Order: sequence, then structure tokens, then C-alpha cells
Amino acid sequence: MTDAATVHAQPDIAEPQQPIETDALIVGAGPVGLFQVFELGLLEIRAHVVDSLPKVGGQCVELYPDKPIYDIPAVPVCTGRELVDSLMAQIEPFGATFHLGEEVQTVEHRRDGRFNVSTSKGTRFVANTVFIAAGVGSFQPRTLKVAGIERYRDSQLFYRVRAPEQFRDKEVVVCGGGDSALDWALDLVDIAQSVTLLHRREGFRAAPASVAKMRVLCEAWRMQSITGQVTGFDDDNGLLKRIKVTGGDGITRSLELDCLLVFFGLSPQLGPIARWGIDVERRQIPVDTASFETNVPGIFAVGDVNTYPGKKKLILSGFHEAALAAYGAAHHVFPERRIHVEYTTTSTRLHKVLGVESPVFD
Amino acid sequence: MTDAATVHAQPDIAEPQQPIETDALIVGAGPVGLFQVFELGLLEIRAHVVDSLPKVGGQCVELYPDKPIYDIPAVPVCTGRELVDSLMAQIEPFGATFHLGEEVQTVEHRRDGRFNVSTSKGTRFVANTVFIAAGVGSFQPRTLKVAGIERYRDSQLFYRVRAPEQFRDKEVVVCGGGDSALDWALDLVDIAQSVTLLHRREGFRAAPASVAKMRVLCEAWRMQSITGQVTGFDDDNGLLKRIKVTGGDGITRSLELDCLLVFFGLSPQLGPIARWGIDVERRQIPVDTASFETNVPGIFAVGDVNTYPGKKKLILSGFHEAALAAYGAAHHVFPERRIHVEYTTTSTRLHKVLGVESPVFD
Repeated sequence: MTDAATVHAQPDIAEPQQPIETDALIVGAGPVGLFQVFELGLLEIRAHVVDSLPKVGGQCVELYPDKPIYDIPAVPVCTGRELVDSLMAQIEPFGATFHLGEEVQTVEHRRDGRFNVSTSKGTRFVANTVFIAAGVGSFQPRTLKVAGIERYRDSQLFYRVRAPEQFRDKEVVVCGGGDSALDWALDLVDIAQSVTLLHRREGFRAAPASVAKMRVLCEAWRMQSITGQVTGFDDDNGLLKRIKVTGGDGITRSLELDCLLVFFGLSPQLGPIARWGIDVERRQIPVDTASFETNVPGIFAVGDVNTYPGKKKLILSGFHEAALAAYGAAHHVFPERRIHVEYTTTSTRLHKVLGVESPVFD
Repeated sequence: MTDAATVHAQPDIAEPQQPIETDALIVGAGPVGLFQVFELGLLEIRAHVVDSLPKVGGQCVELYPDKPIYDIPAVPVCTGRELVDSLMAQIEPFGATFHLGEEVQTVEHRRDGRFNVSTSKGTRFVANTVFIAAGVGSFQPRTLKVAGIERYRDSQLFYRVRAPEQFRDKEVVVCGGGDSALDWALDLVDIAQSVTLLHRREGFRAAPASVAKMRVLCEAWRMQSITGQVTGFDDDNGLLKRIKVTGGDGITRSLELDCLLVFFGLSPQLGPIARWGIDVERRQIPVDTASFETNVPGIFAVGDVNTYPGKKKLILSGFHEAALAAYGAAHHVFPERRIHVEYTTTSTRLHKVLGVESPVFD
């Protein structure tokens, strides 16, 4: 698939697999990332979009899919899901390619002014411009706040379950009171040697049916449920041997275990973005309000992830930022062109890129 | 209606008629002016809106009521009229008062930090804050470009007809080739002593039926139609006596007349805004992008009328500007309050001001 000429044109790429070349790479498929596709599309800039979540919509769909939003201009009311559906319909003419369930991990400057980008799934891009529309960041599991315990992560401490079989015949403690904690505790009863559910209070957020099922299993001595929080641990030759659990009564008890599974929900993190060489101030990316470019030319930041004097975290501000960032990017992608503002009501060029018919005027 | 206390509180107001006190006065009822009502409303700031046109919607409704717009975020397509209808529905909870068909003429700083505002119809306001959402300005008749001829304006030279009877038994020349010119020429045939239609070329933009009617009247010697442009005039004791008309053949002829009616269409003008003491650069108002405030504290400019580095004249940019300007104004209106961003999905206060029910969460 590669020939000498192509390899020569991409001196930074050593591996045989061809990266995807794109004018624009958008990090984040929330409403602002989606509208960025639209604004770039009007300027004939094609985009690839990467998001760590398995579906488009970002926070909007993750956090409030069915709650009404009232402050999208000219949309008196819509749900998060409806907003995303409308945006997907609006960007349809531009044929963006989506890479979902992947996290952008590295963004590196190339000698030719473009960027090498790679994701958690190994997808690689060579991008002229990068748009960070990452919102409050990617959703990462909330961790256990016990000093030093992270050293067991992925060996005995887990925030997600990839292969339940790894817990066969183990003594497992599951922390949390939501659906993930209950569901995994129930599932592991048939696999693990013992399952202890540990929750900081007596009430559970999980579905009542799961809670009822758990109580039945506890009464049958097939699992245990205890109230308390992890406040320490004992190490034995580099292995997590015991955790210390402090109950509501203030008394701390020891609990032996092989594996600790923690399900405290997801919380947004800036994550790898902090390592891309762009300025980050208090988890936000400062930008210039003329083009929403970061301190690295060719990298733009739009929506909740950016900051500037007067910044308000409003979806409608992200839309404006995406428009101006697209014009900013046009100078990188088409350095020889003069870019003018054209209007979708009147421009035949825009009607062409939108795939709509131009009306005939007298 | 006035008592001593009120008069004392308004030392700048000498006339007996009470001005309207308002937290915010919005100049312009185009899409951005309308959305300004919404953003102010969320912050519990009530607004009055003044527009020189007789209806809301501004350029959108004036210039492209039925043409599709494709670049309103989350609205894949709508006409100018539909956009305005949606905005009117969205701002309905905030009960703004509209003053249409009036032009804001003066805005003066008061000693108490507020503004005295007056309109062409004599409506007066005392406003805490003023929002200029005037688009490209107010639509004014395009004038005849003949040096010195403006001295006859409203005595013998007219750009609009208020009372057709004033032309009874006069020798009238009507300039223009559009609907207004043809309609008035035809209407005045029965009133004026003579009607001459003067148009720079042989084709007319007016409705074909009007053009046909005009030709019939010309053939019946009831009016005349000539091709040419006004290039000069003769004055006789302060009266406009004759105009000089240069034809397509390059020959200039004289035409006696009592009244000259000019219908060259409307063109947007910044108009009185230029005299309110705010900085204007090339017919645009520079603003700070943190709050969209002008150089005069308390006066904001949003939408096409403003300028800042990177400015693009997009409706969606105006929406963002209106949001940030509302927060900027909140500091003037509620100097003692700390203003936080709240979200329409979750804030019970916003649900209250929007008049919607707050959902009950677990």
C-alpha cells in the first residue's frame, strides 16, 4: 500500500500502517465538536472526529439526554438528545468520519507544520489542524481516595471489568452503591470465591430490583454487604492483602481480599490533553478570541474546555467559537486563499457544499 | 402623576410626561435584539425594545423572509421569518415591551449613571443599560446624489409620501424604476397636474402589471416616462424650479417641476447612533469581547453593528454576544449581586423565570 513517494512525503511516520490524512481533526463529539464539523464544512474543510465515548453527543447525551434545554437560540425547548439529533442532521452533508470509543492520546508537531495524532485504539492521523472540543474532558472513573492504593491499579484494584473470569475463585470486594457496583457484585457471585459489597451508607442508588436481589443473596450467605469506607490497606510483599474499612460507628475493621473493584461513577478529566504542549490553566485552555487558537498555531480549543476573559460555559458560546475557529483554521488549510464570509441564504457556493438547490432570483 | 419624590429622583427630566423606567433598553428588534431579551430575562433583567421598522425581525424579515438559512446551530434549515417566530416564542416568558416604528434618536448620560433615551415618536426612557442591536443600522431611503439638492428636502424633494394631497395640481417628477416609484407615479396621475416618471434605464424592476399600466397612461398622454438621471437643478428665489436630466444619449435637458419624488430603495444607515458619544469606526462600534460593552460603560453593542478582532457578521455570533452582554449588564443592574452561570437544564430559578416546571430528581 505504501510506495516510495508516499513514504518520502511523510518522513515522521516510521510504522508501516498508513495514518489517515485529514485537514481537521476534532477531539470530542459533543454539540460543539459536531457544530465544528458544520462550520469547517462550509469552508470546505473535511474533518475526522474522535470521542472516547461510544456515541456522539458528549455531556449532553451522557448527562441529560432527556432533560429540557431552553437556551439554544431559536429553539425554545429541546432535550439533550434532540439537540444532538438536530446537529447530526445539520452536519450530514459534510460526511465527517467518526472514531468513537477511542481517546486521542498523543498530538505531536511534525516538521511540516502538521500534527501526528494517535488514539487509544492505535488509529493514527496526520492533521493540518486540531480542534479540541473536549468539553470538561473525557469521562474517567472516579478513583478511591486512599493514599498509595493506586499502586495496585489493574493488578488488584480495578475501576472497570474487562474480563470477569480474572476474578474466578478470588476474594472480591466491590465498592459503590450504584448500578455498576450492584450489577458486578451480583454477576461475580457465581464466579468469585467470595463477594463483599462495601457502600458508605445504607441506601443504594442502584435499581431497586438489583438491591432486592442483593439482599436475598446476603440472607442466603452467598455474599455480604457492609456499610463503611476504605480508609487504609495492608501490603504484604507488594500485594494488597487487607483493606481497612471504617464504618458509620467510627470503628475500623480489617477485611482480607484478593481484588478490590471500585465503581464510584465517572468524572471528567482533561487527561492526555495536558501533555500535548498547549498551555493549560486550571484545567482550561486559554485561547485568543479572534480565532480560538491555542498558544500552538494550528491547534484550536472550542466550547467548555477553553477559557478567555468573559468566558461562560454555554453551548451557544461554543457554537460561536466553532465558527470563528473554522475561519482561523482556513488560513492554515488554504494559506493561499482569501477567505470571505458568505451567507447560507445567498451563496451559491454554500448551497453546493450543503447539497441544497440555489433559488433562482430575478 | 408626578410627585415631588419622583421628580427629585429624576433631576434631568424637565418635561411633565413621565419617561418609562427600564433596566435595559434594546435598540433593534432583529434576531440578536430579540435574543438579547432572552439572555437578559434569564438574569431577571426586564427590557424594552425599540425598532424603526413597523415589525420585529429586522433584516431577517425585511430582506429574506422566505429564503432558507442553514447556519443556525441545531436548526438545519429555517426561513428568516421562521427564525424570528421561534425567537418570539422563546422570549415570550419575559414580557418585553416593543416600541415599533420608532427610531431611537438620543441617548444621553444622566448624572445618576443611567441614560435618557428618546425616540422619533417622543417616547422617553430612563434606562440602566442600553443594548445596540441595530444590525447594519436603520433602513433609510437612498438619497439623490446631486450636490445641494438636499436643501429642498421635505419642501419640494421627498423620499416618502405621507399625504398624497400635498401634490394636488402640482407638476411632479417621480424618480426610480421599482415598485414604489411606479405605484406612486400611477397613484398621483389623478391628483397631480402632471406626472413624469424618470428612470435611468429603459427596463423597470417594478411589477410587470404596473409597468404595463404606466405605458398605457403614457400613450394616452396622461403621464410621461423619460430615461435619464438628475444631474443638476436651477433655483429660483429658494425654490426648486427645474431639474437637469441627462439622458442615455449624453444630452442634458431641463425639466420644470414643483415637486421631486425619489424612490431609490432603502439603505441601512447607522443614523443617530453616531451621535450618542460612543466610539464608531467605519460604521461599526468597537466592543470588548468579555462583555460586548462599548467605550461607554452601560452601553453594549451586539450583532452586526459591533466590531472586534475576528468579528464575522453571523447571526450565531450575535447570539453569543447577547449572552455575554447580559452578564456584563447584570453588574450594572445588580451591582450588589454575584452573578453565576446557571443552566436551564437544572436551575430551579431559571425554570421559574422561564415559567416551566422543574422536574423532580431523585
